[in-house]
Formats: sequence, structure tokens, C-alpha cells
Amino acid sequence: MVDVHTDLLTAQALAERLLITAGVPAPAAAEQAELLIVAEAKGLPSHGLLRLPRLLRRLANGTASPTSTGRHEWQSPCDLSVDGEQGLGPVVALRALDAIAPRAEQFGVAVCAITNNNHLGMLGYYAARMADRGLACFGMTTSEALVHPWGGTEAMVGTNPLALAVPARPAPLVLDMATSKISMGKVHDHAIRGVPLEPGWALDAEGNETVDPVAAKAGSIAPFGGAKGYGLGLGLGAMVTFLTGAAYGTDVGGTLDDIRPSNKGDLFILLGGGRHSVAEASEYLDQVRRSRRADPDTPVAVPGDGARVRHQNSIAQGIEIADSLWRELIALDTAREAVLAD
Amino acid sequence: MVDVHTDLLTAQALAERLLITAGVPAPAAAEQAELLIVAEAKGLPSHGLLRLPRLLRRLANGTASPTSTGRHEWQSPCDLSVDGEQGLGPVVALRALDAIAPRAEQFGVAVCAITNNNHLGMLGYYAARMADRGLACFGMTTSEALVHPWGGTEAMVGTNPLALAVPARPAPLVLDMATSKISMGKVHDHAIRGVPLEPGWALDAEGNETVDPVAAKAGSIAPFGGAKGYGLGLGLGAMVTFLTGAAYGTDVGGTLDDIRPSNKGDLFILLGGGRHSVAEASEYLDQVRRSRRADPDTPVAVPGDGARVRHQNSIAQGIEIADSLWRELIALDTAREAVLAD
Repeated sequence: MVDVHTDLLTAQALAERLLITAGVPAPAAAEQAELLIVAEAKGLPSHGLLRLPRLLRRLANGTASPTSTGRHEWQSPCDLSVDGEQGLGPVVALRALDAIAPRAEQFGVAVCAITNNNHLGMLGYYAARMADRGLACFGMTTSEALVHPWGGTEAMVGTNPLALAVPARPAPLVLDMATSKISMGKVHDHAIRGVPLEPGWALDAEGNETVDPVAAKAGSIAPFGGAKGYGLGLGLGAMVTFLTGAAYGTDVGGTLDDIRPSNKGDLFILLGGGRHSVAEASEYLDQVRRSRRADPDTPVAVPGDGARVRHQNSIAQGIEIADSLWRELIALDTAREAVLAD
Repeated sequence: MVDVHTDLLTAQALAERLLITAGVPAPAAAEQAELLIVAEAKGLPSHGLLRLPRLLRRLANGTASPTSTGRHEWQSPCDLSVDGEQGLGPVVALRALDAIAPRAEQFGVAVCAITNNNHLGMLGYYAARMADRGLACFGMTTSEALVHPWGGTEAMVGTNPLALAVPARPAPLVLDMATSKISMGKVHDHAIRGVPLEPGWALDAEGNETVDPVAAKAGSIAPFGGAKGYGLGLGLGAMVTFLTGAAYGTDVGGTLDDIRPSNKGDLFILLGGGRHSVAEASEYLDQVRRSRRADPDTPVAVPGDGARVRHQNSIAQGIEIADSLWRELIALDTAREAVLAD
């Protein structure tokens, strides 16, 4: 199977057309498409166009709402509850962040707890956007139980990613990491591409080690970093779920299927009280970048550096999309044109 | 070298006596001693009595203040800046948490940013205390630059631990982890005990791998979990420092020496807006504990479980203290008695 080469604008326009045809207003379609394309551009295909056909099916069958932007209920001036009402993840999350960012600037801290919202996509996108505004940000979300505990063999914990951003120039520090060794999106991507997993990444449904991505989809994936990574993933998941009122553990659904309402939780904490200047933060990060290298040819990186370089390269050179996925999207687009021509 | 066996009350009383003789008021001495003894009891000697002789030297030479409880300056009703004024870490941190906890209950979120404060000791202690009060908690602190970047060979990043606690019964989930593979306290403990490190834990001053704890003290320790753990440690450190105004990276001192004022930062975020009941959170954690085991004889654990069992065992059976350390403390206590007898 070969990959198809395309440029970002073509891919973004295709995704937008398909979303608009599914009933999504143009500005919201642009936001959702942007999240998918930026993930592709930054080298995170597990959060890219792979997600679009499922999202279109969810919009078509009414599982996802094309128009909801989330119902806001302030618990205090700096604590916002959001019922996503099954809207598109980025659309709901960006409205929530737009609402709490001024509160974080005013009060030094603000939080939003979101439920009933579809997949956010690349979590670092949101954190970076807040850091560009001068706010430090923690972003957390839960997922289907896909990860086995350290010392366990059953999928009990979400991949529960953490994003963290700190304002800096020329660009913020942006950490965006699943607490699993790999994302289940990557397992799906390997399955689509027919590429085996690496040993130690996953267990099958019986709890045995496997490198078969199809077997892993029915089993569980490993936490990163041993007991600590497991503890972090479980802890973040328990934290987000306790605070949002979302579904716990194996009750979570809706980000990897076509038919279940999405019942995971999203939590963002924004911190506005920087006692240091952005220039001072930037100087420290530059010291780290200039520090002694393990490999003389590879400079020490700060979280976000690699993704930023890949993004710039993708703007200049385009991106590669799995052939089967691209053909599926083109077929959907052709069907759309046929309907419009009727 | 053999270990000395003692019970918790004897060890706590010894630590309190030594602190009171150094000018610390009795209630503050009890708090500082408690942090040291609980660390021993939970099996974290790197944050235990090992720290006491250094602290006594810092008190004796004026580097640490026996009486400061921290100067509080509210930035907003839910954002507190604390100048620790070189007080004892637990004393300053507990006063700050006592101040912001009611604000988190009222506003759903509150934060404190602490500078100029001595070593906190076991970070999970504070998080557990807040969770016992019904609040979810993130606790973060920075340290001397001891960790080499992923892809780097120089100590540029603190061990920057993260504590996270979520209310649950019979006890909260309490994650408490350094973002280094091991703590530098553990390196010191190995050095005192004359036990070599494991391969992959540390580099020497030239950036070469070493298992010699003395060489590692002059070099750097590895981040946990590869690139992700490095990113997390750097990100947390940059976050805490940006928000507190503390010293960055290699400028940090005062938790591993006798003479430098402590200039690291401490940050706590308390979240009061739990939309789930504590019973629901507890039920999920129990599901994880009951899930299928990799080793039939070892149940799946939730963060904090192991430390709690060790603590109960230590209450019943006492603790082991390195012989050289115990003799040092007894000598200090004897000198104290001699002074009092004069």
C-alpha cells in the first residue's frame, strides 16, 4: 500500500467540504478540519484525517451534533462547566477556552470541565493557543479504557493524554503526550497501513504480548514509563472524571466508534499569573537547547520543537496520507458532488 | 554497614528535639519532623531523616529560618503568592494550602505559587491531605538541575516531581513521582549505604554512563520514561518556574547544600468542583484493583496503595535507618543534652 501525497490546503479544503455537507456551519467546519490537518502536518496521523470518516458517520446518524457549541454553566467566575451536547470536539473546546481565558487573566487561574463532547484531536493545539495568549495551560482528556495497568493485563485505563504549555518565544513549550506507550490511534494507523507493532507495546484480549495491530485493537496497550506512567495515566483519568462527571474507565465510549454518544471528559486549567517574563522562560529553554548533546548531529529539543519543524516542512512540501484513507475521502467527496449535481 | 531499627515515635521525637533546639517552635518542629518520618515510614528514605542533618546545619548558619511561615500576598481571591522567607518547607507549604483550600471550595479552583522555601519533602503528603479534605490536587516543585535531557548528557532539568491526588475511600489516589528515573536523594542514599546504582540511571560529569553513586552526584540522572518523561519534567519545571518567579534550571540551589538560600519554586493547584461523588471515584479505583493480574499473587495497585501498606507496617514494626545517619543524629542529640546540662 502506498501513500498519497497532497498539500495542506487541498486536504483542509476536502475535509471542510465534507463537514459542511454533513451540516456543519462553515466556521466550525474550518475549526474541525484545522485540527485534523494540523495533526497530519505535525506528524501525528493518529489524530488526523483517519478520524474524519468516523466523524462523518457520527454526524450522519445523529450521534454527533453539527451545530452544538456547548452549553456553558459558570460554577464561579473562574470555574466553567460545559455540556458539549455532542458537538464537535474542537468547536466545543475552543468556545470553552475562549470563555475562561479572560478569567484566567483576571483571577490568575481558571478551569473548564467539559462532558458530552466529541474527540478533541491533538490536545497540544489548544495548549499552544493558550500559551500564545500568554497563559500557561494544562489540558487533559480521557478516552476509552485501552491501557492495561502496570501489573495488570486488562484494558482498564484511558490513554489519558496530558498537554502542557508554557509561554515562550519564538514559540511556546508544548508538551502533548498520551500516557500510553503509543496511542490507540497509532494502532489503528498501523492496522490501516499493515505495519506490525513493536514488542512491548500491546497485549491481546487474553493478556498475552502481541505485535499484531488487529489483535491489539481487541486487547490493551501498555502504559509509558512503567509504573510511573501507569500511575500518571490512571491519576489523570481519575482526576478528569471526578471533576467533569464524565464516565469512568470501561464505561467510556464514543471516540472510536460510530454509534455511542461520547461520554469522556475534558479538563483545562489556565494559569495567568506568570511572575517571570516570557523572555526569561525563553532564555532557559534556549539554554537547554544549547546543552551538550548525546549525538553531535542532533540538538537537544524542547517539547514542541520537533512538531513545529514537521509542520513547517509539511507547509512547504505537503503530507502523505494512507492510500486507502485518501481514496475513501475522495469517494465521499465524489458522492457529495453527485448529490449536489442531482 | 548495618541498619538501625527504631520505632516511628522514637524517630519523630528525636527529630523534633533536634529542630526545637535549633530554634524551631514546637508545632513547626512537629510538622517538619512528621514529613521526614512519614517518608521513612512509606519507604522513601531519600526524603526522610537523611535530610535532617543538612536542615539543622542550614538552621544553625542562618540559611534557613526557624520561624518563618511565609509572607502571603493575594493576587486574586484564588491566586496566592507566597514568599517563603527561607522557612521550613512543610511549615510554609501547609500554611499556604490552609489559606487556599477554602478558596478552592468556594471558587472551584485556587492556586498558590511559593518561592524562597526550603525542601518540601514528600510531595504526596500535601496532595493526600487536600484530597482527605475533598479537593483534587496537583502539587509540583522544582529542584537543582540534576537530570539530563533526552538526547542530552548534561544536568539541565530538575527532578521536578508531580503529586496528584483524587478524593476516594478508604483513602485517596495519591500519585507522587519524580520525573527522573530515580531521585537524587536515592543516589545520596545509595552513596551513604555504599550500594551501586542500576545501569541506565545516571551519567557521570563527562556524560558517560555510570553505576557509581558518587560519580553520579557530580553528573546527571536520567529522566523516567524516555522522551515523554523528559518532556514532562522539563515542562513541569518551566511551568512552575514561570508561574512562581523562582530560579531556572542550573541557577537553582538550596535543597542539597548547606549554604545557598533555597530558590526553587513550589506550585499547588486545588480543584474543588468535583461533579462526581467520592463514592463513584472509589468504585472505579476498586474496579482497577480487581482487574486481571499479570502475576496472580500480586493485585493491581492504585497509586498510593503500596505506600499506605508500608506506612501501616512501619507503624506496627518500626523502620530501618542507615547506621551512619542514625549515629550522626544520636551524636547531635547527645551534644544537645550536654549543652542543656551545662
